[in-house]
Amino acid sequence: MTILRQPTRAGVRDAAAKIALILPPTPLFVLPINGVDVAFKAESLQPVGAFKVRGAWHRLTALGSEARVRGVVAFSSGNHAQGVAWAAKRLGIAATIVMPSDAPRVKVESTLALGAEVVTYDRATESRETIAARLAEARGSTLVPSFDDAWIIEGQGSAGLEAAAQMTALGLGSPVRAVVPCGGGGLSAGIALALPDAAITVVEPDGWDDMKRSLEASWILPVADDAPPTACDALMTKQVSPLTFDVLSRRDATGVAVSEAETAAAQRWAAEKLRLVVEPGGAVALAAVLAGKVAVKAGMLVVLSGGNVDLAAYGRAMTQT
Amino acid sequence: MTILRQPTRAGVRDAAAKIALILPPTPLFVLPINGVDVAFKAESLQPVGAFKVRGAWHRLTALGSEARVRGVVAFSSGNHAQGVAWAAKRLGIAATIVMPSDAPRVKVESTLALGAEVVTYDRATESRETIAARLAEARGSTLVPSFDDAWIIEGQGSAGLEAAAQMTALGLGSPVRAVVPCGGGGLSAGIALALPDAAITVVEPDGWDDMKRSLEASWILPVADDAPPTACDALMTKQVSPLTFDVLSRRDATGVAVSEAETAAAQRWAAEKLRLVVEPGGAVALAAVLAGKVAVKAGMLVVLSGGNVDLAAYGRAMTQT
Repeated sequence: MTILRQPTRAGVRDAAAKIALILPPTPLFVLPINGVDVAFKAESLQPVGAFKVRGAWHRLTALGSEARVRGVVAFSSGNHAQGVAWAAKRLGIAATIVMPSDAPRVKVESTLALGAEVVTYDRATESRETIAARLAEARGSTLVPSFDDAWIIEGQGSAGLEAAAQMTALGLGSPVRAVVPCGGGGLSAGIALALPDAAITVVEPDGWDDMKRSLEASWILPVADDAPPTACDALMTKQVSPLTFDVLSRRDATGVAVSEAETAAAQRWAAEKLRLVVEPGGAVALAAVLAGKVAVKAGMLVVLSGGNVDLAAYGRAMTQT
Repeated sequence: MTILRQPTRAGVRDAAAKIALILPPTPLFVLPINGVDVAFKAESLQPVGAFKVRGAWHRLTALGSEARVRGVVAFSSGNHAQGVAWAAKRLGIAATIVMPSDAPRVKVESTLALGAEVVTYDRATESRETIAARLAEARGSTLVPSFDDAWIIEGQGSAGLEAAAQMTALGLGSPVRAVVPCGGGGLSAGIALALPDAAITVVEPDGWDDMKRSLEASWILPVADDAPPTACDALMTKQVSPLTFDVLSRRDATGVAVSEAETAAAQRWAAEKLRLVVEPGGAVALAAVLAGKVAVKAGMLVVLSGGNVDLAAYGRAMTQT
């Protein structure tokens, strides 16, 4: 059974209230860029190292008792898998995560450590969507998409409400612009719903800027087949969803693309100035601001969305100049 | 005029109340080591990247209006300098920081950016203590020591009260053991005062373990002249002070020394598991626990005291194995 539902601002508020009961607000840091105070929301400091716990918590807590018994299924080799496993563990819900057989050992182990069952598939010959859908149907489980879902979008949006409350408490006022990393658009659409008065800028890696191009075309365009390699594994989404696109399009969101070098520079800035480990995909919004691709202004909110790094690659990003 | 005063637990409480008005509590993270939940206090996320703002704030706010007008003097090439400059700026007090002429440019610039005056000296021919004392006397300024001062110790101790309140709120109870990086002993003595029921373990780099040896000898022993090089620049204190030593000695604190490799491994663990950038000196307590030199037990508090890194050295620590 598919439940069709549009994400709403009321849903984001509901998500934020539920999430506040289990997760403390992630820290918000204020630091000047070119002399202007900018707010940084450190979602990299969530359990599992990314904002993904928000959407997962909102989605899983919305399941009825019968659905809870039948468990959940998700596919992801990264942060969404951990978010779902984390929420499922706390709710006593069985979680099955579909991961490629060549997924990094550390990610498989982290998912197993959170109590989830891991089902692997062969990237070359099988489709994870098909496998996950088949598993969900066979078991009567609920499929938990990583962004194409009203609850997921609303849950991620709670980061925006939280940041606005923190900025207001600090005397900075509600955000006038939110600059947000974008893969499938769950986080940026959620924040757009959370902050109806803020301008929304989504940031993607060069060549993976399908949300940017889609917003410009007013039509969903996929990533090109010959997209270049990127260190932003969390943002390698081939195509956004009508749910996320529609929210951002209605809000006149604009897109920006950043280079791999700009992303690495942002990781170094975050390490040196904020003492935060930020993964490449989590650093693209900061990269856009530091590179001058988004004009710095007072009341700006920059989201650092995740901090799960491969240490060898991270070390190289730190020393690269 | 020198004010002789012993640090007290009441002073730590007073410091904590004052600090709570200006600084939000630093995050406390809970993560298992060998299956046991351990609490990590992220002082690396303070403004200026270290706990030093605590002691500086407590000391400077205790100055009378006349002393405030005459300003403060401190000597330090690192975190203490920034802490004093940070507090002085917020209080409108003129701060003069004595730094070696070969101090890293970035540290000089950060100190200047905080509005302090920087006076340089030649490490080879001059003594910073003499220069700072002479400056203080000439200007009638107050000298702010980095650890040999009751206010500084009490201020740093506020981290212990904060952590205990956070652990209690999380249902972990008050800390049963605090494991703390130790240079001059200001932070560890302050935490010992803050937590009268906790066992105290101080951690130093190999060869710079003068507090450990002093506690074992019941007498203050200096660092040997041929002490090995260490990446823990924040902990390269040649000799602890009677104030810090006496507090720790009365509390039967014990010392542990860690190797450079153990410290780098702890930096990697903090990056991977906590997504925090921790400087070598800030990571030694974690290093001692991960290396099995301090037995892991429930209710343990590990302090991550600072996060100011040289990116090139940090990148090497990330990739070193």
